[in-house]
Amino acid sequence: MPLPFAQRTSVEEVEEGSLLSPKFDSDGLMPVVTTDAQTGELLMHAYMNQTALMKTIETGEAHYYSRSRQTLWHKGATSGLVQYVQQLLIDDDQDCLWMRVTVAGSGASCHVGYRSCFYRQIPVGTEAVDSSSPIALTFTEAAKTFDPQQVYGDAPNPTQL
Amino acid sequence: MPLPFAQRTSVEEVEEGSLLSPKFDSDGLMPVVTTDAQTGELLMHAYMNQTALMKTIETGEAHYYSRSRQTLWHKGATSGLVQYVQQLLIDDDQDCLWMRVTVAGSGASCHVGYRSCFYRQIPVGTEAVDSSSPIALTFTEAAKTFDPQQVYGDAPNPTQL
Repeated sequence: MPLPFAQRTSVEEVEEGSLLSPKFDSDGLMPVVTTDAQTGELLMHAYMNQTALMKTIETGEAHYYSRSRQTLWHKGATSGLVQYVQQLLIDDDQDCLWMRVTVAGSGASCHVGYRSCFYRQIPVGTEAVDSSSPIALTFTEAAKTFDPQQVYGDAPNPTQL
Repeated sequence: MPLPFAQRTSVEEVEEGSLLSPKFDSDGLMPVVTTDAQTGELLMHAYMNQTALMKTIETGEAHYYSRSRQTLWHKGATSGLVQYVQQLLIDDDQDCLWMRVTVAGSGASCHVGYRSCFYRQIPVGTEAVDSSSPIALTFTEAAKTFDPQQVYGDAPNPTQL
């Protein structure tokens, strides 16, 4: 079945046109920004390939491509924390997606157990930097919303050093 | 001058620790999600290298690495649309940044002239897909906030086919 994507024939058509003509990178991926549809909070940043994008469009549930597991990833299949797509947008040059979602269950999206993957803050300003020691982060979420060990068991942690 | 970044010595330290130990990709870059600090709107998705991150932390104004121009990019240097960082966060595995900003001037962040780079919506649901024709986008911003020709003149358009 041919994909319902238009050819990228001109910059004007890509930027100002009304046809979906996505550009995937050399690995066949496109970054996706996922925010809470109600609060605007950034929940996660991940990637889609063509299949993940089509599955997301067809089902209304977020599908990604897992780079660590190298497979299609239906978010919530293991944890139950399915992301329901309220709005899906694409950027000017059509190489990045913005997905506004509501999350099932506890509402968490981060494998570490926090609501958002972005639970630590970097200080900003000249006084923040003292080159003799590493910059200190502060936590913005007081507690985890679930226990990753209970949810994922012994599944490998996607974080790589 | 040594960079004030900690070594990435363990997954636990990277995910649960309080030291900034960023991971840049094989091109020396890290994706950055930039949202409006007040509305939560996604303004743009771009990249930082080490220098851009340090400049952003030190000055409180958004600096990126321009992949199309292959240079450090002080956002707003040409257009006046400087982004003032209200909050800077990093994700669980420290390879992605979330920057909450207020924007100078007209408040726009997109080189095409729109407020956000994400001004077009992809329909979601089975009825959205008819494989015989490309998926149609709808515009979510009614009008441009500035005239790119007036602001950027004949500077090359960063969009690539």
